Amino acid sequence: MRPSGRAPDEMRAIEIIPGFTRHAEGSCLIKFGETHVLCTASLEERIPPWLRGKGQGWVTGEYGMLPRATHTRGNREAARGKQSGRTQEIQRLIGRSLRAVVDLGKLGERQITLDCDVLQADGGTRTAAISGAWVALRLAVDKLMRENPAMQDPITGQVGAISCGVYQGTAVCDLDYAEDSTADTDANFVMVGGGGIVEIQGTAEKEPFDEEMLLRLLRLARMGCDRIFAAQVKAVREAGER
Amino acid sequence: MRPSGRAPDEMRAIEIIPGFTRHAEGSCLIKFGETHVLCTASLEERIPPWLRGKGQGWVTGEYGMLPRATHTRGNREAARGKQSGRTQEIQRLIGRSLRAVVDLGKLGERQITLDCDVLQADGGTRTAAISGAWVALRLAVDKLMRENPAMQDPITGQVGAISCGVYQGTAVCDLDYAEDSTADTDANFVMVGGGGIVEIQGTAEKEPFDEEMLLRLLRLARMGCDRIFAAQVKAVREAGER
Amino acid sequence: MRPSGRAPDEMRAIEIIPGFTRHAEGSCLIKFGETHVLCTASLEERIPPWLRGKGQGWVTGEYGMLPRATHTRGNREAARGKQSGRTQEIQRLIGRSLRAVVDLGKLGERQITLDCDVLQADGGTRTAAISGAWVALRLAVDKLMRENPAMQDPITGQVGAISCGVYQGTAVCDLDYAEDSTADTDANFVMVGGGGIVEIQGTAEKEPFDEEMLLRLLRLARMGCDRIFAAQVKAVREAGER
Amino acid sequence: MRPSGRAPDEMRAIEIIPGFTRHAEGSCLIKFGETHVLCTASLEERIPPWLRGKGQGWVTGEYGMLPRATHTRGNREAARGKQSGRTQEIQRLIGRSLRAVVDLGKLGERQITLDCDVLQADGGTRTAAISGAWVALRLAVDKLMRENPAMQDPITGQVGAISCGVYQGTAVCDLDYAEDSTADTDANFVMVGGGGIVEIQGTAEKEPFDEEMLLRLLRLARMGCDRIFAAQVKAVREAGER
Amino acid sequence: MRPSGRAPDEMRAIEIIPGFTRHAEGSCLIKFGETHVLCTASLEERIPPWLRGKGQGWVTGEYGMLPRATHTRGNREAARGKQSGRTQEIQRLIGRSLRAVVDLGKLGERQITLDCDVLQADGGTRTAAISGAWVALRLAVDKLMRENPAMQDPITGQVGAISCGVYQGTAVCDLDYAEDSTADTDANFVMVGGGGIVEIQGTAEKEPFDEEMLLRLLRLARMGCDRIFAAQVKAVREAGER
Amino acid sequence: MRPSGRAPDEMRAIEIIPGFTRHAEGSCLIKFGETHVLCTASLEERIPPWLRGKGQGWVTGEYGMLPRATHTRGNREAARGKQSGRTQEIQRLIGRSLRAVVDLGKLGERQITLDCDVLQADGGTRTAAISGAWVALRLAVDKLMRENPAMQDPITGQVGAISCGVYQGTAVCDLDYAEDSTADTDANFVMVGGGGIVEIQGTAEKEPFDEEMLLRLLRLARMGCDRIFAAQVKAVREAGER
Repeated sequence: MRPSGRAPDEMRAIEIIPGFTRHAEGSCLIKFGETHVLCTASLEERIPPWLRGKGQGWVTGEYGMLPRATHTRGNREAARGKQSGRTQEIQRLIGRSLRAVVDLGKLGERQITLDCDVLQADGGTRTAAISGAWVALRLAVDKLMRENPAMQDPITGQVGAISCGVYQGTAVCDLDYAEDSTADTDANFVMVGGGGIVEIQGTAEKEPFDEEMLLRLLRLARMGCDRIFAAQVKAVREAGER
Repeated sequence: MRPSGRAPDEMRAIEIIPGFTRHAEGSCLIKFGETHVLCTASLEERIPPWLRGKGQGWVTGEYGMLPRATHTRGNREAARGKQSGRTQEIQRLIGRSLRAVVDLGKLGERQITLDCDVLQADGGTRTAAISGAWVALRLAVDKLMRENPAMQDPITGQVGAISCGVYQGTAVCDLDYAEDSTADTDANFVMVGGGGIVEIQGTAEKEPFDEEMLLRLLRLARMGCDRIFAAQVKAVREAGER
Repeated sequence: MRPSGRAPDEMRAIEIIPGFTRHAEGSCLIKFGETHVLCTASLEERIPPWLRGKGQGWVTGEYGMLPRATHTRGNREAARGKQSGRTQEIQRLIGRSLRAVVDLGKLGERQITLDCDVLQADGGTRTAAISGAWVALRLAVDKLMRENPAMQDPITGQVGAISCGVYQGTAVCDLDYAEDSTADTDANFVMVGGGGIVEIQGTAEKEPFDEEMLLRLLRLARMGCDRIFAAQVKAVREAGER
Repeated sequence: MRPSGRAPDEMRAIEIIPGFTRHAEGSCLIKFGETHVLCTASLEERIPPWLRGKGQGWVTGEYGMLPRATHTRGNREAARGKQSGRTQEIQRLIGRSLRAVVDLGKLGERQITLDCDVLQADGGTRTAAISGAWVALRLAVDKLMRENPAMQDPITGQVGAISCGVYQGTAVCDLDYAEDSTADTDANFVMVGGGGIVEIQGTAEKEPFDEEMLLRLLRLARMGCDRIFAAQVKAVREAGER
Repeated sequence: MRPSGRAPDEMRAIEIIPGFTRHAEGSCLIKFGETHVLCTASLEERIPPWLRGKGQGWVTGEYGMLPRATHTRGNREAARGKQSGRTQEIQRLIGRSLRAVVDLGKLGERQITLDCDVLQADGGTRTAAISGAWVALRLAVDKLMRENPAMQDPITGQVGAISCGVYQGTAVCDLDYAEDSTADTDANFVMVGGGGIVEIQGTAEKEPFDEEMLLRLLRLARMGCDRIFAAQVKAVREAGER
Repeated sequence: MRPSGRAPDEMRAIEIIPGFTRHAEGSCLIKFGETHVLCTASLEERIPPWLRGKGQGWVTGEYGMLPRATHTRGNREAARGKQSGRTQEIQRLIGRSLRAVVDLGKLGERQITLDCDVLQADGGTRTAAISGAWVALRLAVDKLMRENPAMQDPITGQVGAISCGVYQGTAVCDLDYAEDSTADTDANFVMVGGGGIVEIQGTAEKEPFDEEMLLRLLRLARMGCDRIFAAQVKAVREAGER
């Protein structure tokens, strides 16, 4: 029995509020149950120095957690003067995941920064961040394309992410904090529409896992990502209707 | 004529959503028009080393701005590895302002940290932060007092803050970004219920100002703080009704 | 009764030694009683990147305290690897205050850095720093104008600063450390010749203060600044006579 | 055709020189072809503060790359003043991987730090680091057990790691730099003796990959780890014979 | 011919003003011509953690240069966030030099920090710092011994330092900046009363030097240190007479 | 009697393995007994900004110690976020020493960085680093000259370094850790072929030393450097024969 009472393949309620903040070219607040992440896409007409003259753009991610997003207050990374290894690892993952669905040549010499800031955490913040970042990116690119009618869409598809794991011996989908902190195995999957895998990060916290369990988690993840893709489409549509 | 079309003594709409996040002992999202600040109060049963053995508690503030809270994206302070002088100045102001209405002896050997994180900025973020931090503090202390029925209330009154200034020669109340960035004079006032002044920070951005103008700004500020005090009371009452 | 035996409106002895160090374009050692600050003005024929092409100059301030300027030794900020919030706050104040009396267009594409280093501290270091920085600035600009006879004077007037406060219920002028550390209210005033206010920073350390007290402090400050202006003029004249 | 001319399932020559440095409790130089990593295990009779009183030990990893281990010189992380996100990610992976085969309770209140420093890099440095760290750990624990005859062996098995990937459409084992930098997919596998999976980190650099390809890589990895386990056993035996 | 017109063995005028600042247990301003260094000795009744329980004290040095002590303004080390290699090298030298004349056991469990801050630089700042630090140390220990009449004097002798070098082929004593920046060889000597050598740091900036030249510099240094010892004694006597 | 049983003028076995790593333009592993330092020379076709347009090149050194090169594990400098004063002092010494035998004009607008990383430490790491860096430099320049046949050799001679000291009253050559940590006096000498002195750094750890002892150490150093020069020549010849 999961702490939340959910069935093994049951996800938390997903809510995506597009346009949550107004200055960013694209933004949303994404909620996976009690995990709330504010995602913004900032478009800048400049690129990192090492990309200059290559006729392409760049997409990168940054991640932060408000000090009291968690059960007990954590130190503010800006005050400590450095970002933790965990933060940097997540930032790199967000960037790679979103670049997997962007044709950087079509984007042109522009940079889009996806800022994912966790307002409230209850497990799965990095996967919510990736899933929300896609919505912010889509909205920012839609705006860019409205302003540049001749531009071809640089986004090649959807990307979403979910964490699955082995909780008390059973493969379960969309771990919350209570499960995540005690799971035997925790695996994050990043997938594109159609089911291709962009990234797998699986860690055995207690016992090593085997091929069969890996496949079981992979199938749960595929099912979960399909639900995320639907929520993303709905959010983008709502943004357009306003 | 103010850019927003407001009358000189007209404030922006104030909205305070108590309990905006769930882990903090007290929290609210405070909105002054398009300025949105998430304030949380975190209670810890420990005190800074230099206070040990003095039989009193501590109240401190921290402040942050999400990278894309502003019109153009700013660098993430955690990534740059240090907090700006502006951030530190505001943090110190938040702490001093809230301590002005707390009896640290009655608080006991506890620390309350007020985290004020700007989700969206349109001028007046530090004054909104102080005004919202009081609500978060009040909710956290109410919770603490429910758990410690014998405890005396350490909060001695309300504290609120507002920025007033001279815009095109006229004294105006509650500057937004369009005014703030071009004002002749910009002054932040922190006041307690009853009208006592806790802090004044007035800066002539262009021409020096005189005693008469200072008094005019002070009166606008007193009027504004009264409205803030009412909004704070309403928010705390709503939190109690849930 | 003030710890020093001074009357409420009595300032400490002011001494300004112009040309205290020889490499800087302008310099002085300013003493307010036992508070001694070395102020240097360094002129550079370059401007910060964000000012390029605007046809104007820049004036900025830096502040430091020698580790044993104080009663007990403090850590060296260079060794700790960062400047405290207090230091940064003061640096920003020095820069704003001096820019209030400089026409940056007339200065041309040059930067003047005002370094204020406290050799010995006894309260009021930031106001002494501002008052001394003006002398260093004046001397540096005089030198510049001698070398560029066609140049118009970019300095529009004098600026001085003083701290006043409420000590045991009485408004007093020019707080020393014994008063500053126990004052009810502490307010720093930066003023220009003629009495216009450039900056007010007032903080109630214990009880909030009211409008009447604010005005009383303001009047003490105006009187004090007049004495500072006279001492500045005298120091500049002495420098010229050598 | 692989750049090195190797068959898809052909690994590079593995060489492990135990006892490469003399001060560490355990050490080895591990070579996967032209990738050379110096691994040391340092035993300390102390534990991190957050583990105190829990009656268990800790195993952690650190990773570094000499500035000219690579084709072009990189900046020294100590000089830049911070470790890159990549370095921190690898350090965390090394620590988790080795802890997977240590019974921290049996280790007792001791910490073992596994330092993995890359002397020469040609792809696969993190997997070589993990594979070599196990040898250093084994030697350090053997020494500890000789000194504490009553101690039970805290090491529960072997752990090894290998990178596999998709190069020009074909699944290949043990990527070198020429392959790694152009691979379609790159996946690192950490496995224990018996074939259980401790960690999978798979990234699609170009096209997303599917379940079938994931399984193919997994099987290559299992085969590769078996060879690594044999090399580890041989190295530990050689160390014992000296 | 030396730029200053001095004879090869002629030193600059030495002036030592004892008690230049008032809070430190001992202090002086030392001038070697236009090189001015403020030296303070701060006594603390605590020792570094690694000395605890050894029944001895510690003497350490810190060094700083005000940003405009030099011909052109340098960056403030506190603002850059780190001390230069040069600064650290000098700090270590100051500490070692002064410890050479202190019996740390007789000092007892106390730490004396010698802060040497350069107000104005014209070559030879590190040697002036060492020579002045001894005066500050002597004054602080005299004060300590007056307060602890039973204490034995922990200072075993005088220490002084001077820079000599080869300027245009000639061995000269007490290099100023004009010489230092173009010298063939620059050597700093730290000596104790009686002529024993505590430290030699000689660097050939252009041509290597030979044994004979080394001896010639050594003899100039011995003569120079004798003059420094006399100036130190005079300054300590003056301090006592006040 | 020396701890190692060596005679006072007996050095440890010197071994230099040229080409120890393959990416660097020049490299060697140098061993002085149990002190092992990996030296690489990296050639870059760029120069530091402050040298631009002067038609000359630059040679610089960096130094690091692996965390467990020593008897007890030290913190990783990259993790602490700064290099120690000792590290910076050694880096500066390596750069100065090697520049003493390079004609920077003949080098042309190129930079050579000499990275000296201590794999195992037993005293004398800085002198081994300098001695090995020369071999790496020589090999890198030989390669450069083969690629630029018209280039004149920028290397003007050999440079080597050795530490001598006073151990239990006797002058001894090539201190190992057991001697170094208890020596009365420790002096590092950097010399060029022919016996010219480039750098002397002598420190009295206990008793001051006199002129006679300095000369005795200098003669031991000269003898030691001759042996180092021979080992350097042999290593360069071996590299050429491969």
